[in-house]
Amino acid sequence: MKAAREGEIALEFDPADLSADASLVFIGRVRSPWTDRDDCPKNMAAARAAGRPAKIEIDPAYRRGLDGLSRFSHAVLLTWLDRASRDLIVQKPRHAEVARGVFALRSPVRPNPIGLHVVKVGAIDIESGVIEIDGIDVLDCTPVIDLKPYFASNDAVADAVDGHAAERA
Amino acid sequence: MKAAREGEIALEFDPADLSADASLVFIGRVRSPWTDRDDCPKNMAAARAAGRPAKIEIDPAYRRGLDGLSRFSHAVLLTWLDRASRDLIVQKPRHAEVARGVFALRSPVRPNPIGLHVVKVGAIDIESGVIEIDGIDVLDCTPVIDLKPYFASNDAVADAVDGHAAERA
Repeated sequence: MKAAREGEIALEFDPADLSADASLVFIGRVRSPWTDRDDCPKNMAAARAAGRPAKIEIDPAYRRGLDGLSRFSHAVLLTWLDRASRDLIVQKPRHAEVARGVFALRSPVRPNPIGLHVVKVGAIDIESGVIEIDGIDVLDCTPVIDLKPYFASNDAVADAVDGHAAERA
Repeated sequence: MKAAREGEIALEFDPADLSADASLVFIGRVRSPWTDRDDCPKNMAAARAAGRPAKIEIDPAYRRGLDGLSRFSHAVLLTWLDRASRDLIVQKPRHAEVARGVFALRSPVRPNPIGLHVVKVGAIDIESGVIEIDGIDVLDCTPVIDLKPYFASNDAVADAVDGHAAERA
């Protein structure tokens, strides 16, 4: 990807071309109502507001891993954003006035394009590997790499400060 | 790893031996006070309670990506738990009465051993790539694979229900 917008900076290499430090296996995929990037919500708050439920499909070998997940109201889904490039270290989102570092953004374009999504867990069918969720902000068929129970005690920081909020408003 | 405790189930293969579906690059490492697995806190709530700050070191090529992160109070750190095995799909933690699926556990042993840690962001030195954090629940030198700003609007679910809480109490 070229650094196309004002202030954007590309890495001098593409992380996708480096020798792997570690290998991921895909354990399933997201089934999402979004097939067009322009329609796809840009974050989970927008996905929830869209009111379009979605599903996670876990591959047969991994389905026994779902045992016990139904006792949690929420989960953290990790996806591999396979349609994102990886080589833009400073980026200028459309909503932003200035470019900023990728680690201050939730952009799918990052050295390791992992998506992190806090989802509400609905019905789970362990036999078919299907988990219903309240919404999702990725394209249909995005690969799944992990699913974790959400613990408010570890994961919820209700008063976390987002210094960019005023700029976006 | 063998399924050593009652009720545990191993996969019929080791995900580490499969051909990679995607490749990760390490972008830095955690500098943690924990060098012994027995001392290391088991989750971030325990890590915060331990009162031992830690650091993230980002490698030179990726340091420009930190620009803007200081405006956030919290971040989500993703690590690669390189000392964890990957082939146990049903596990029995010491605290649990019964074995359960890996996707209902935050165990480091999982098909893709990715650690997810919500951390409080302290001082950031972009030049040296060092970020001070309030605490961490991984061993020293654990590889870093991503760092994202924490947005309460997307990531905080204060009333998330943990159906296992009573069992652990």
